[in-house]
Order: sequence, then C-alpha cells, then structure tokens
Amino acid sequence: MHTPFVGELLGTLVLILLGNGVVAGVLLAKSKAQNSGWIVITAGWAFAVMAGVFVSTATGSPDAHLNPAVTLGAAVVTGDWSKLPVYVPAQMIGAFLGAVLVWLQYLPHWAPTEDKGLKLAIFCTGPAIRNVPGNLISEIIGTVALVFIIAAVFSKSVMAGAGIPAGLGPYIVGMVVWAIGLSLGGTTGYAINPARDLGPRIAHAVLPIAGKGGADWGYSWIPVVGPLVGAAIAGLLIKVFI
Amino acid sequence: MHTPFVGELLGTLVLILLGNGVVAGVLLAKSKAQNSGWIVITAGWAFAVMAGVFVSTATGSPDAHLNPAVTLGAAVVTGDWSKLPVYVPAQMIGAFLGAVLVWLQYLPHWAPTEDKGLKLAIFCTGPAIRNVPGNLISEIIGTVALVFIIAAVFSKSVMAGAGIPAGLGPYIVGMVVWAIGLSLGGTTGYAINPARDLGPRIAHAVLPIAGKGGADWGYSWIPVVGPLVGAAIAGLLIKVFI
Amino acid sequence: MHTPFVGELLGTLVLILLGNGVVAGVLLAKSKAQNSGWIVITAGWAFAVMAGVFVSTATGSPDAHLNPAVTLGAAVVTGDWSKLPVYVPAQMIGAFLGAVLVWLQYLPHWAPTEDKGLKLAIFCTGPAIRNVPGNLISEIIGTVALVFIIAAVFSKSVMAGAGIPAGLGPYIVGMVVWAIGLSLGGTTGYAINPARDLGPRIAHAVLPIAGKGGADWGYSWIPVVGPLVGAAIAGLLIKVFI
Amino acid sequence: MHTPFVGELLGTLVLILLGNGVVAGVLLAKSKAQNSGWIVITAGWAFAVMAGVFVSTATGSPDAHLNPAVTLGAAVVTGDWSKLPVYVPAQMIGAFLGAVLVWLQYLPHWAPTEDKGLKLAIFCTGPAIRNVPGNLISEIIGTVALVFIIAAVFSKSVMAGAGIPAGLGPYIVGMVVWAIGLSLGGTTGYAINPARDLGPRIAHAVLPIAGKGGADWGYSWIPVVGPLVGAAIAGLLIKVFI
Repeated sequence: MHTPFVGELLGTLVLILLGNGVVAGVLLAKSKAQNSGWIVITAGWAFAVMAGVFVSTATGSPDAHLNPAVTLGAAVVTGDWSKLPVYVPAQMIGAFLGAVLVWLQYLPHWAPTEDKGLKLAIFCTGPAIRNVPGNLISEIIGTVALVFIIAAVFSKSVMAGAGIPAGLGPYIVGMVVWAIGLSLGGTTGYAINPARDLGPRIAHAVLPIAGKGGADWGYSWIPVVGPLVGAAIAGLLIKVFI
Repeated sequence: MHTPFVGELLGTLVLILLGNGVVAGVLLAKSKAQNSGWIVITAGWAFAVMAGVFVSTATGSPDAHLNPAVTLGAAVVTGDWSKLPVYVPAQMIGAFLGAVLVWLQYLPHWAPTEDKGLKLAIFCTGPAIRNVPGNLISEIIGTVALVFIIAAVFSKSVMAGAGIPAGLGPYIVGMVVWAIGLSLGGTTGYAINPARDLGPRIAHAVLPIAGKGGADWGYSWIPVVGPLVGAAIAGLLIKVFI
Repeated sequence: MHTPFVGELLGTLVLILLGNGVVAGVLLAKSKAQNSGWIVITAGWAFAVMAGVFVSTATGSPDAHLNPAVTLGAAVVTGDWSKLPVYVPAQMIGAFLGAVLVWLQYLPHWAPTEDKGLKLAIFCTGPAIRNVPGNLISEIIGTVALVFIIAAVFSKSVMAGAGIPAGLGPYIVGMVVWAIGLSLGGTTGYAINPARDLGPRIAHAVLPIAGKGGADWGYSWIPVVGPLVGAAIAGLLIKVFI
Repeated sequence: MHTPFVGELLGTLVLILLGNGVVAGVLLAKSKAQNSGWIVITAGWAFAVMAGVFVSTATGSPDAHLNPAVTLGAAVVTGDWSKLPVYVPAQMIGAFLGAVLVWLQYLPHWAPTEDKGLKLAIFCTGPAIRNVPGNLISEIIGTVALVFIIAAVFSKSVMAGAGIPAGLGPYIVGMVVWAIGLSLGGTTGYAINPARDLGPRIAHAVLPIAGKGGADWGYSWIPVVGPLVGAAIAGLLIKVFI
C-alpha cells in the first residue's frame, strides 16, 4: 500500500481535512472557533499543508505535491509528464474524501448554521468581489508565488552546504503557504490548487449537508484554470531564474 | 528518579499546567488574557505539548507520550502492551497535579468568575453542541489525525537522510497539535487524550474551587472512549500505510 | 540570469508582493482579511522576508539583503562598498515591480475602498503621529535593531559548532523581522528599508489606482534617511561588539 | 568589548527594548498596534527573548541568561555562584537602558496617552488582581516552569544524538517563553525575571515621561522575590529530576 498514488491521496486527504476543517471551525454556528478570524484560517491552512506533506511522504509519495498545479509546474520544469495521470486522480480523490471527513467532524453544526453561503465556503473558495479577470489574476499570481517560492526553498543555492534539514522541509513549506494566505488570500480565498477546490466542491454537491445551497459551479473553473496557468508560468520562470 | 514513570508524570503535568493554564487565562474574570480567543488557546496548547515532550524526555521517558491514547496506539503498532500499566497511571497522576497547579496559579481569579461552566471548561472539555454520536466522531477523527500524523513525522520515509534534528521533534509535535486544535477543535474542544480530560476533571471535583459547579460526569466518558477508539484505529492505519 | 542583480531584484519583488500584499488584505474594502489586525500584518511581513530571502538566494544573490540599509550596514562592517551600486538599483526596481503586482492582485478592491489614506498605506509607510524627530528616531532605532540582531544571528559565536542549519537562516531572519514589527512598528509602520518604502511610493504615484490620493512626499525622506542612518550606526556597533 | 558582562548587558537591553516595546505598541494611544491583544504581547515577548539570546551570545556571554533568576537557578544547579556578581548588574543596567530606548522609540505617544496606569504597565508588571500570596505564587510557578523547561530543552537526554542545532536554541527558548506567557501570564503579567521588572521600573521613575504617575513601589518586591524563589526551587527540582 506504500505507493505514490496512496501517498498523494492520503496527503491531500489530510490537507483538506485540516484545511477545510479550520474554515468549518471559523464559520459554523456554535463552533468554539467561530469568528476567530483570518489569523486562525491562514495558520490552519499552513499547518494543514505541513501535516499533509509529512503524511504524503510517509505513505509513499516521493514528491508530496498534494496539488495538480504543483505537479504540472514540476512537469514543466523537468519535462517529465508521466506523474500527472497518477498524481492528479489521487489528489482529487483525497480532496473529496478529506471533505467528507470535515462534514462528519462537524456533523451537529450544519443544521444550526443558516447561511448557505458559509456552508459552501467551507468546501471551496469564492471571490470577495466577483470579477472574472480580477479573480483569475489573483489565482494566477498566488500560484506563481507558491510554486516559485517553494522551488527557491529547495533550490541548489539554498540547499548547498547544510541546507534545510530534510525533515523540516514540510514545516517550511507550511510557512510559505502561511505567507501566501496572509498576503494574497484576501481576494479569492487562495485556492492555488485545483484539487483543493474542485474535490470538496463535488463533495458539497454529493453529501447530504443539512440546509445546503448551490455549489456555485459558475465560478468553479477559475480556481482550476487560474492555478494551472499560474503553475505553468512558474515552471517557465523557474527554468529561467533558478 | 530518572524513570519512564517519572518522565510521563512530569511531562503530562507540564502539558496540563500550560494547557489548562491557557484556557484559564482566556476564560477567568479579570485575567490579562481574558477573551483573547481561539488563536491564543490553540497556540497555548501547542506549546504546552512541546514543553511537555521536552520535559518528559529530559526526566526519563523514552517515548514522551503524555497521552494514554498515544500509548495505546503505539501498542497496537508494536504489539508491545507492557508500557500501558506504567505510563497510563503516570499520565493520570501528572494530569491531576498539573490541574492543581493551574488552580493555584490563578487563585485570586476563581471567586470573581461567576459562570460555573467557564470554570469547568478550564479543567476539561465539553461539547459545543451536545450530541453523543457527533461528539464521539469528533474525538475519534481528531485522535486518528493526531496519532497518524505524528507517526508520519517520525516515519522512516521522513527521517531517512537528514530527518528532523532529534531535538526539534517536540517542536514539530507541538505544531501538529496546533493544526489539530485550529482545524478540528471547534466541536468538542479536542480532548484527544483521556488523561488530559479525566485527570483535571477529577481535580475539579476534588479541589475547593470558589463557586464551582458540577463536573458534567455524563459527558466524561466521551473524551476517554473517543480518543482510545481513535488511537486504536490510527494504530491499524499506521500498520497498513506507514 | 543567475546574478546578484537578479537575485536582489527578485527577492525584493517577492518581499514587497507579500509585504505590501498583507497590508492590502487588511485595509482594502471587501477583502476577506479586512481588519484582521496587527498580528496578521506583522506575521505577513515576517514571512514575506523569509520568502524573499529564499528567492534571492536561489536566484543569484550571495547576500539576500533586499534592503539598501542592510547593504550599507554590511559595507560599513566590511569596508567593501562595491555592492551598493549593484544591489540598491536592483532592490529599488524589485520593490517597484512588487508593488505593481500587489495592485494587480487586488485589482477589483481599489475602487470600493473610499479612504485614500488607506490606499497609500498599502504602498508605503506613514507615521501614527506626525513628528519629524520622533519619527526619525523610530526608524533609526528600528533599523539598528534589525541590522544588529541579524548580525548577531549569523555571528561567529552563534554559528560556532552546529550553528543554524544554513537553509533555516531565512526563517530566523523572518522571525527577527516579526519581532521588530511587533515591538517597534507601532509608531511609523517600520519601513526600516528605503527600497521597501520609496519603490512602492513611486509605484503608487505612477499606477492608475482607482480613486488614489497624494503620495505624501513630504514624509518620504524619513523612511529613507532613518534606515540609512540606523544601518550605519548598526555597522559601527557591530564592529565594536560582535 | 567581547565579555560576559557586555553580553548580558546587551542581550538584556534587546530583550527589554523589544519586550517593553511590544507592550508600548499595544497600550499607547494612536499606536498602529493599539489594542491588538494578548497574542501580540506574548508573541512580542517570545521573539524578544529569542533576539536577546542571539545578541547576548554574539556579544560575549557564554550563557545568555538575561535574567537574574536564571543565573540564580544555574548557580543552584552547578554550585558555582561566581557569575551572579557579574551577570546581575549587567542585566539590571541592560534592562534600564532598554527601557530608555522604548521611551525614545515611542516618544510622541506618551503625551496623548491619558491613563497613567497604562504608561507604567509598559515598563513593569502589575497584578490583574492585587493579592500578595496569589501574586507571589503566580510568579513562583511561572519561574519554576520557565527555568525547569529550559533546563529540559538543553538536557543531556534531549541533546543526545542530533539534539537541537546549536543555533536554534534561542528560537526554542523564545517558544518556551511564548508558552509561559500564553498560559501563565494572565495573572501578574509574567515578570519571571527581576531585572525585566525592576530595571524598567527605575527607568520609569527617572525618565521625564509625559504625564506619568507613580511606579507602584509597593508591588515591586513581588516580581523580584517571586522569580528568585521560583528559580531556586527550579534549581533543586533540576538536580533531582534532570
């Protein structure tokens, strides 16, 4: 059971359980974390990534991408496209299952939460201001930053000499995601990961969530296309600059 | 005095002194930390775990579990059940004594705090919404996540090569607990540790706390059974996936 | 393309994208991070520095200064002034371009934000209380602290023996900047970097920002002169004490 | 100039500049950090300790105590009392000078702050509830925790094998102080350091602070005696348990 497919699936599952989980804690009625704000949401996602990368590495993935955009960016850099058909389905399934667990974790809290929009926001992102070019630009810039900075962290220049102790890589990646969330997330909620957005959106559509509304499919292509475009651009920038 | 029993006892004592302490700071009347919110509570518990693991390691425990559920999960993985009768009593005694110190630390603040429920919440967990299956599921998922992610952090795959510098393990464990708290704690207050809940609940019942109420014994089995079930499940998952 | 000039430019670009970005998130109307407070702003700048240092190192700078004041302080310590004419223009261009990206990232949010002062505050610093000597002193003390503490972190005494693993240096530098921001930033917003302030101020003047006001050029010399004076003082103190 | 005396003095100066500085930022009128809460105060003190320890190590102290209570605790453990007459005066002078710098850093903010109590609180600690035995117990427990946990971090058991990379010790010490502040600071403001409290209290009495009140000398012995008693107890506990 120790394969890259399993590793990407379980790592993404943990990412979404903890990432969607922190949003549930902040948005759902009567939660002890209700209204605890942006520092809690961004910290929660940062540590969700850290935990997901640890789990993915421990369960079989040599890359711990947890994100089709990162897998795409890596393919652009290396020219090896063979991982995409293995990793992306694993990431999508993991994201879906992670969202199912969030629904279970907060089971008694869905009914007393009246706002259907808040319930959807736990699963997938939505724009603060609906504006197609603006939202696309936001997701593209956020993903370029994510992929390029992580490539810098693990570049030869940084790792020469002592480098980051291998086991602390997941922690530093989590801190990079904290940075992206704090600084670039205010506009579209920083999907920066097609699986993170689409997998849980499908879960929202499928699960019998008490008093749920629509899944805003009209917006759903932006957090898929934006991150993929951003990662491709980042891949090219990495080839030029790193 | 440098034995595993002492190490588990003192580590859990520090865990509860700092963990229950941060809840006291946030909930008690006139505290300088009053109403400082979820980020303070979850950060406090994260660093409480970090400090407890350092102390437990330094004072004789080779494992620094501080948690009967973790000891159970380790027994499921290794098949060695001999540590349970040594560690669990030490963890319970340490948790009780840590709670006594919290009562002393905040001595002038108990009388001016009117809400009996807040005073109990400093010692042990309670559900945001009382719902037996929902609360059990929450404690089970939280503990599975805790035990499985920590096993991933210290897995062969992660530690191969440079790994986490040994002395930073307690810090990373603290960050994992920060993740669990931020993301999964909003429902039941993430006991995820039978000693953490039951030891201080007994202390609450025994101590002459000014104006205290009942100890909510009706709920007390959930933060014991939930974490034990979760840890057993995590142990099985670790055997399959890590 | 892997040169010190490129490294300083791209590192400073990332610094400003994330640093000005977090201020945009907190101040702009309808942002999901709106009014999330000082902990978010200071954390955002801390991780912005960490990310900028990683990127600068990975793309060609052996120093990752990202700050003309730091380059000046290093010249005072080493007596080698040859880096200033290369690094400072790169830092200024990078800061300008980073600010352009922040404008793009938050494109739909400028028009609905009515307060012109808030829009300027995203790009460059301004004093909480306008007072020339007081503001200068604040920027000087803040920069002395920044440069002296970073020199201490990388001093022979600290790095003797195991030292900081090389790859974790950027993280620790970020934490030092978190310290400066939390503790010394309340007065003038801790420019402590002429490029960080002047580059984005020029961007604010040049860009077609919806409903923008003036760029407060009357204040603009303080976050340039203060940090340069502070860095020169720090350079002298480093020669005496470290 | 590279002596233990200088190292303790400068490290404590930085500790107080940043530690008292963060309280100034949160309490003074018109500060950009005003009312930003307990997470900011405790994070600021944590990073203040980290920065002070780096500076103290870099400028000549082999111990970086920054705290007469820690020096006393170390003397109890080692039986070597010769450092006290060198370190304690250095720590007191450093704390005084750090407080002078805080006064300068926030110079325009003292006059518009009306509450004399807030101005004193920037320099030294005061109890949330005035209660001599309760306040003493709080300072004792807080200091026992501080000294004992730090001894655990650097114990043979933790440092055996890879240990904490030497250069990350100051960071971990900062995180321990964050723990103490979050969890035990709500009662008396966690002086846990006689120099941290008495040095700035003298500075408050001496400096021409606009609109200042009294220095609450009646309370001033508690944050001196409490930490010294606590450190002595911790020293004995370390000899028994670590």
